[in-house]
Amino acid sequence: MSEEVKVFAPGSVSNVGCGFDILGFAIDGIGDEMILKKNDEKKIRISPVNGYENLPTDPKKNVAGVAIQALLDDLGSDQGFDVEIVKNIKPGSGIGSSAASAAGAVVAVNELLGSPYSRLQLVDFAMIGEEVASGDIHADNVAPATLGGFCLIRGYNPLDVIHINPPKDLWCVVIHPQIEIKTKESRELLSPEIPLKKAIRQWGNVAGLMSGLYTSNYELIGRSLEDHIVEPQRKVLIPEFDELKLSVMEAGALGCSISGSGPSVFALANGKETADVIAGAMDTVFRRTELDYKIYVSKVSDGGVKIL
Amino acid sequence: MSEEVKVFAPGSVSNVGCGFDILGFAIDGIGDEMILKKNDEKKIRISPVNGYENLPTDPKKNVAGVAIQALLDDLGSDQGFDVEIVKNIKPGSGIGSSAASAAGAVVAVNELLGSPYSRLQLVDFAMIGEEVASGDIHADNVAPATLGGFCLIRGYNPLDVIHINPPKDLWCVVIHPQIEIKTKESRELLSPEIPLKKAIRQWGNVAGLMSGLYTSNYELIGRSLEDHIVEPQRKVLIPEFDELKLSVMEAGALGCSISGSGPSVFALANGKETADVIAGAMDTVFRRTELDYKIYVSKVSDGGVKIL
Repeated sequence: MSEEVKVFAPGSVSNVGCGFDILGFAIDGIGDEMILKKNDEKKIRISPVNGYENLPTDPKKNVAGVAIQALLDDLGSDQGFDVEIVKNIKPGSGIGSSAASAAGAVVAVNELLGSPYSRLQLVDFAMIGEEVASGDIHADNVAPATLGGFCLIRGYNPLDVIHINPPKDLWCVVIHPQIEIKTKESRELLSPEIPLKKAIRQWGNVAGLMSGLYTSNYELIGRSLEDHIVEPQRKVLIPEFDELKLSVMEAGALGCSISGSGPSVFALANGKETADVIAGAMDTVFRRTELDYKIYVSKVSDGGVKIL
Repeated sequence: MSEEVKVFAPGSVSNVGCGFDILGFAIDGIGDEMILKKNDEKKIRISPVNGYENLPTDPKKNVAGVAIQALLDDLGSDQGFDVEIVKNIKPGSGIGSSAASAAGAVVAVNELLGSPYSRLQLVDFAMIGEEVASGDIHADNVAPATLGGFCLIRGYNPLDVIHINPPKDLWCVVIHPQIEIKTKESRELLSPEIPLKKAIRQWGNVAGLMSGLYTSNYELIGRSLEDHIVEPQRKVLIPEFDELKLSVMEAGALGCSISGSGPSVFALANGKETADVIAGAMDTVFRRTELDYKIYVSKVSDGGVKIL
């Protein structure tokens, strides 16, 4: 058993258009790096995170620390770990920054302990970790960050995660306008009641998306990505959303919607070539604004956290 | 080209628990037989239907007649047909009686005309036919009756039907309590607004059901069949529903819910043996009542309308 491990913990896109609160996928193009070492102090020690001094180093408040502790408690172990996080996914970006830390931490610890848990089992611990950051139990970022590909979270009592291999040429483009949106604020925008007719359209689209993923039917994935419930209520928070979506669809995207609770916006594409054209279209829209932004072009990850 | 054709038009179960208004599947165990002959009168003539004198024989009011006319109009043909329907699926049973007539009619006519249309294209015409009976455009019975297996109706503008092959050991048991429920009355029971939280659970289950169907994961199909929205509102219309469901689940059903808008209730099972046990459990519950009822044990159809 090694004493030290380095991992890559990918970003992730949750909600995925129609799949509000139940779907997410991992992306290879952006992620955190984490180095974990065993220590003899029986303590979890978190180093200050590069450039993010406000992220807590107290292991009881840090998502990685809490996730590791949940794993150790379940295992009945008091092993200590030193945790170093090189954060590339900006907190609050809407592409699973805290989920990456939680997923990376538990995969790394599991590796250092001789893999007592399966990847699927690790999702539970990562979810407990992420709760510290979001204040809410949800797995639509931690599951894909841990397992890769698409993950369906069918339900929570008990946690029911279904992994779906991504179609092999499915690419994702994410633009992250560097503004802050609080998940809580974004949640509060949502009406607690919805018309049954819209709900039916939505679960028709969810079913279509699942079918498209299982049969690698890119066109079906595209026309199923429509979200008639959440996106219309939330898009007001995202600068240039309508123009961005229009440009991206004209550039050949299969579909486009808000990543998580924003402010990032994602588009899916069949193949890298189209993904690059989409990235160019996003850039054209945002270059005219005063906003800082970043664009990531990436294959949909098929592996989740990678041990380096 | 033959001058006469006989077809078997299967029953179908729509809604399928969580999949309200978007899902249906065909069953082999019960269906209508139809005999269609070309005539030289350039007219569609419908014979009185065995035992159902109240079913219209006017081709403009009969679902088979309207469906055939829709096909002929699209094709630009004035061929006449004599239509004989041997109806085994009782109208108002909730297992797609009118859908069977519409699907059987268009498949038969297509066959007699040298198959100008694909099965998928025929769904459009069958849907127009069924509208006469239900007063509403919906395809969640006509699509599976025509194509077999499971059918997802993702949306209607344009009609988007996705066919899914059923897992090979998936059996269905249907009990039809012989009481009348009007679809309209059953629709009016439904609240036009639903809580977002319930909608999320529902589309999580819809996605789980799709995943289970694509991966032949019977357990996942079972736990995804739950319907937290429609069934709780409609079950009051169905005698003994709670006891029936309890018995059926104890007998090993994967799941159980209302077929269409009732009064029929369906259960899914992994294998014929369990299906037979479920049928016995249904029989035990209903034998104690004063109600007439019929029980059908059947494999989920993989072919839809069959040319005999």
